[in-house]
Amino acid sequence: MDTNLSVLDSARCARASSGLIATAPTAIKNGAIKAIARIIREETIAVANANLVDIEHAQHNGISQPLLDRLRLDESGIERMCQAAEAVAALPDPVGELSGLHQQPSGIRVGRMRIPLGVFGMIYESRPNVTLEAASLAIKSGNACILRGGSEAIRTNCAIADCITRGLEESGLPAEGVQLVRTTDRSAVGEMLAADEFIDLIVPRGGKGLIERVSRESTIPVLKHLDGVCHVYIDDSADDDLAVRIAINSKAEKYSVCNAAETLLIAFSKARTVLPNIAAQFADLGVEMRGCERTRAIVPNVALATEQDWYEEYLDAVIAVKLVDDIDEAIAHISKYGSAHTDTIVATDLQKTQQFINQVDSASVMVNTSTQFADGFEFGLGAEIGISTDKLHARGPVGLEGLTTQKFVVYSDGAIRHR
Amino acid sequence: MDTNLSVLDSARCARASSGLIATAPTAIKNGAIKAIARIIREETIAVANANLVDIEHAQHNGISQPLLDRLRLDESGIERMCQAAEAVAALPDPVGELSGLHQQPSGIRVGRMRIPLGVFGMIYESRPNVTLEAASLAIKSGNACILRGGSEAIRTNCAIADCITRGLEESGLPAEGVQLVRTTDRSAVGEMLAADEFIDLIVPRGGKGLIERVSRESTIPVLKHLDGVCHVYIDDSADDDLAVRIAINSKAEKYSVCNAAETLLIAFSKARTVLPNIAAQFADLGVEMRGCERTRAIVPNVALATEQDWYEEYLDAVIAVKLVDDIDEAIAHISKYGSAHTDTIVATDLQKTQQFINQVDSASVMVNTSTQFADGFEFGLGAEIGISTDKLHARGPVGLEGLTTQKFVVYSDGAIRHR
Repeated sequence: MDTNLSVLDSARCARASSGLIATAPTAIKNGAIKAIARIIREETIAVANANLVDIEHAQHNGISQPLLDRLRLDESGIERMCQAAEAVAALPDPVGELSGLHQQPSGIRVGRMRIPLGVFGMIYESRPNVTLEAASLAIKSGNACILRGGSEAIRTNCAIADCITRGLEESGLPAEGVQLVRTTDRSAVGEMLAADEFIDLIVPRGGKGLIERVSRESTIPVLKHLDGVCHVYIDDSADDDLAVRIAINSKAEKYSVCNAAETLLIAFSKARTVLPNIAAQFADLGVEMRGCERTRAIVPNVALATEQDWYEEYLDAVIAVKLVDDIDEAIAHISKYGSAHTDTIVATDLQKTQQFINQVDSASVMVNTSTQFADGFEFGLGAEIGISTDKLHARGPVGLEGLTTQKFVVYSDGAIRHR
Repeated sequence: MDTNLSVLDSARCARASSGLIATAPTAIKNGAIKAIARIIREETIAVANANLVDIEHAQHNGISQPLLDRLRLDESGIERMCQAAEAVAALPDPVGELSGLHQQPSGIRVGRMRIPLGVFGMIYESRPNVTLEAASLAIKSGNACILRGGSEAIRTNCAIADCITRGLEESGLPAEGVQLVRTTDRSAVGEMLAADEFIDLIVPRGGKGLIERVSRESTIPVLKHLDGVCHVYIDDSADDDLAVRIAINSKAEKYSVCNAAETLLIAFSKARTVLPNIAAQFADLGVEMRGCERTRAIVPNVALATEQDWYEEYLDAVIAVKLVDDIDEAIAHISKYGSAHTDTIVATDLQKTQQFINQVDSASVMVNTSTQFADGFEFGLGAEIGISTDKLHARGPVGLEGLTTQKFVVYSDGAIRHR
């Protein structure tokens, strides 16, 4: 790998090698991923040492503790990263599947073949394990990729990328297929986002600021993951225990995640039964509740929610609570204030659950299930490229399939068309 | 329908009504389409008269004959347009299909439900029958839509839209679900392309200029249909008769279509056998050939093709011809000069056809089949929204499914997550 390539040249190299990767047999691709994992294990000390230097510089630059934690990659972290790559190698190959082949009246047989997109770009912050994760997802899905990690992790990323290059060469795949942007110049991101001639999809991983910047600047389609204002609606037909359990888990299993509930909606006639219990458990867990007037009539110690609270993605130990007259008001609230990410209903009434599923236009709509399950692994996708809050191409958790597309394949024995 | 709405207000109205259309039962949607077709038949004279006024104005404005032909909508055209709408009503409903429901180790059951996109915008030129076609595709797929036809067809489009409004009202669907932009102000297109808050997808129908402008200006995803530089490759293993037949039909069945072949590639060792026959038939049909030097060595009366010819989408009775050493050179040529639209191989060697299918990265890849088959109806999609030359969301001919997306639906009996 030429370490002095411009971003545009890197993207061009990735594109040039994409045909070979796209058509590589599954065994070769899996072999490459396993070889890379093996080489990284052999180079554990080199990778860990590179990481220590990154951490030293980051500390010197006064980086925050959470960022430092994400930057850290010790021996056990390297082992986990290698195991994750091997798990990707073990997934079914999405490429080459021919589906729906059927004969038309004209005699032509038409089907669709799943194929790689070509080249994707990943832009990420801090966590250097994403370098290997992105590379293994790319190889498995038959795509070339160009990776732009955080500048604070540059030494770790370079050490990992060197192993990736060796693994690709060893297995006979083009080393140019996985490109790491080795400059820490901030203009590199802008160059990547303009390289629409060579890159088919941009996948940003990081905070909202990064994703918004990427979406705004990119001339390439972006797998966007924006707000997760998720709701739990407790219907008057809900089982009490189940309602409490799902409300608590949806908020409190983890606060900082996009699939954590931010607003709890409770049918008015159910509130006296479940709300005191929920409030007591939230209090024990240190979760702050902000409620509507009717909520405060039942649990008085709750702060009054403002209009802004209904829009808020707290990502913290805070939850907004609103009592609604019925499921219609709940759905209207979700439609107005929600972010179409993940919403769940707790109910026993079949008609109500059907109404919720049909009328709530969110990427993941759930019944009697914690919102915290909205995740590619939990959904059985095998890997998670990202979560899409867009409607086109992919919606919700995105697996390997999100890095592929389909082309039409047509067979006949000399069919010609007569209009 | 308020005829004085701004484009943004129209889009807002379409969005507001989209929930009702998205969840309407199939029978109601089909009933609405049939009611609209019935009302248009009843109003045949009014629609035809509106069209005559449009034509009179267009003639007065010195519009070209091809545009006039496309603008014309006489009684038989109205009848064909109504039958096409009824055919859309007869298609299977893509909305609501739940697929892939399976249980995860956690106990949750996860599936995907096909749902409408929400609101699409159609921007089209001249042909007023597109107004009804777009409306019926929208209703069938559960989408609201906002339609912007050519200014020269405004009276015809308004007459058709009035019938659509009546049909929607009669069947109990919101009349606001199909919005026609009734101003002929050119700024209306710009306003539509900026209404990303209310519109999910833009579908342009028209010349390359329109599509390029829409793609450039739109902040909304666009179903792009750009160049169709399609190839026929005749392998040395090809059946002679079949090779000639497919070459001729791919070019000459119709010249002005995107799926017409623009370049013919012939394996060098096959050229002496098939090229003279092909050249004779093209000469009879009045098709001009532009060939490489080796082509001219076999059929001397052919003009020399320039580098630019290999990139050209003639859309006319012209074809570029190149002799290649083998299938590898043919695929490399297609990769360099093609537009990834539709390419076909004529061959009897199974390995060669497999190589062609795997290595040619085009929306439609064909074997022993005329490129002129690349079409939503011929592919069995039932309707054609458009053809996509993009890779994301939809590639190649796009049917009703292209106006839908999928959401995850998750069921359990109270599953909570433990990380």
